[in-house]
Amino acid sequence: MPEFELVERIRRRAAGRGDVVAGDVVLGIGDDAALLRVPAGKLLVVATDTLNSGVHFPDGTAAADIGWKALAVNLSDLAAMGAEPAWCTLSLSLPDGDVAWVDAFLDGFLGLASAHGVTLVGGDTTRGPLSICVTAHGFVEDGRALRRAGACVGDDIWVSGTLGDAAAALVLGAKAPGPMRERLDRPVPRVALGRALAGIATAAIDVSDGLLADLGHVCAASDVGADLDIDALPASPALLACFDAGARRALQATGGDDYELCFCAPADARGAVADAAHGAGVPVTRIGCVRHGTGVRAHDTGGAGWVAPRAGYAHFDAAD
Amino acid sequence: MPEFELVERIRRRAAGRGDVVAGDVVLGIGDDAALLRVPAGKLLVVATDTLNSGVHFPDGTAAADIGWKALAVNLSDLAAMGAEPAWCTLSLSLPDGDVAWVDAFLDGFLGLASAHGVTLVGGDTTRGPLSICVTAHGFVEDGRALRRAGACVGDDIWVSGTLGDAAAALVLGAKAPGPMRERLDRPVPRVALGRALAGIATAAIDVSDGLLADLGHVCAASDVGADLDIDALPASPALLACFDAGARRALQATGGDDYELCFCAPADARGAVADAAHGAGVPVTRIGCVRHGTGVRAHDTGGAGWVAPRAGYAHFDAAD
Repeated sequence: MPEFELVERIRRRAAGRGDVVAGDVVLGIGDDAALLRVPAGKLLVVATDTLNSGVHFPDGTAAADIGWKALAVNLSDLAAMGAEPAWCTLSLSLPDGDVAWVDAFLDGFLGLASAHGVTLVGGDTTRGPLSICVTAHGFVEDGRALRRAGACVGDDIWVSGTLGDAAAALVLGAKAPGPMRERLDRPVPRVALGRALAGIATAAIDVSDGLLADLGHVCAASDVGADLDIDALPASPALLACFDAGARRALQATGGDDYELCFCAPADARGAVADAAHGAGVPVTRIGCVRHGTGVRAHDTGGAGWVAPRAGYAHFDAAD
Repeated sequence: MPEFELVERIRRRAAGRGDVVAGDVVLGIGDDAALLRVPAGKLLVVATDTLNSGVHFPDGTAAADIGWKALAVNLSDLAAMGAEPAWCTLSLSLPDGDVAWVDAFLDGFLGLASAHGVTLVGGDTTRGPLSICVTAHGFVEDGRALRRAGACVGDDIWVSGTLGDAAAALVLGAKAPGPMRERLDRPVPRVALGRALAGIATAAIDVSDGLLADLGHVCAASDVGADLDIDALPASPALLACFDAGARRALQATGGDDYELCFCAPADARGAVADAAHGAGVPVTRIGCVRHGTGVRAHDTGGAGWVAPRAGYAHFDAAD
């Protein structure tokens, strides 16, 4: 299928929010660029992330799951800023113009977009090894964005949902239980929770590289240290069933791709945090506290130190 | 080099416009997303384009040229909308974390960014086959954007600069004269011209797929046809020296990657177009006119019909 027809096919399917929230997409797919209107008084929030075949998803991952995940990881970044998603662009590099693959990809991508009121406003399709670059745009009220910098000594440290399932699914491969595999293939961006925490949390990040690594980024940006209760980390029933405590802890503390929110909030905001979590329909767990110093110190509930067997995932590490 | 250090290295080098235009970048590289302020009364303009090794640039292209071109093709899209560039994101997939390559890439990328007052506000680096996805953001006054739709019957058709050099450089390879090769490796986005034409031109597009194909997009979007004087197409001295008239016409009419602006304007705006071109320091040439009907009809100055040997470049064409 020629590129122009492929783009036209994508355009036709990208109905998006046009009917629901008229007016902020002045011009969408089909010109040299999109024309967009940011609401008065709001900041524009922009995140971009690329998924490459064999790096960010196993070869053979279903096209619909790839489409879902490519948008989800970007919406997760917006969630971690406390932003309300609005628009995205999609740059799709394909080894060939396989229409059935693109249709299935769009099922996942546009399904998630529609669930969050996100309009696909532009992009390109090119020939190349399978790679998907998405840029997501959203809004946040000036002064209410959740940054990495902002954690204060004495703050509670929280995490949403459960940790370790996505990494566990990679370890188990075809043997992973369905709900666990779903966490890897169809991560749920915590958009409603991020919105609800804006103005409450002092700092936030989404857990994409692993909790220790990502919480470490918050500590570095906030110029603080963290004490982490490794036994407090929330686990799914599937993770509890499949791994002993030692392996489970490692997956929870260092496994990437969970896309939960890790955030800090003052101890006197515990009620507000609980209300935000309840309103968003997402459980949250208190897993530690912010202290003077640097770095993340993990320990079990008894106080004994815990050292991760491997500290998160980073591209280009010598260990890779 | 680990990913975090690579990102930190990019952040340090992305000084950007911070010192010059304070205030619109509230938060740049280093968090989950960037926080940006769109000027009141302006529309946000967003373009995204990916370059893949071996597809959009020959293997062995210098890293600095790849960096330049990755941003240039996106700024060219903003120029074609009449927009003023402001920010960009960069998603870089690399086979390895080669620091020298990245530094040279940034020389080209940030050199062009700096020349246009564009701040690099975010992105990611991932492992994968060499691929660069850039999303460029700019502003345009509401109602003054240059769209593809808008060309009116009777309008003049114009093109900036000269056509065919980039395609000729690909044909000639190592034998291409320096200035011709420069057009392929370091295309100059016509940002100042696009800005000057906002409010004057009725429609515009940048010539990336070839004049016939791109003017065809304008015609389709505007529901008009075009008469094109193939002998009027501007050629560089290098192109005139290297090719006979037949080969030259084909390169000018169908060669991609020139990144000139093709635009339409009423005949009574010829003075205003000339003033805009003079102000922007870019020559423009009248190459045809808009007529009733559909499609682009090319003819020589004597009126004899001209048929392109190949109609532009499209990924996924059966002919590729």
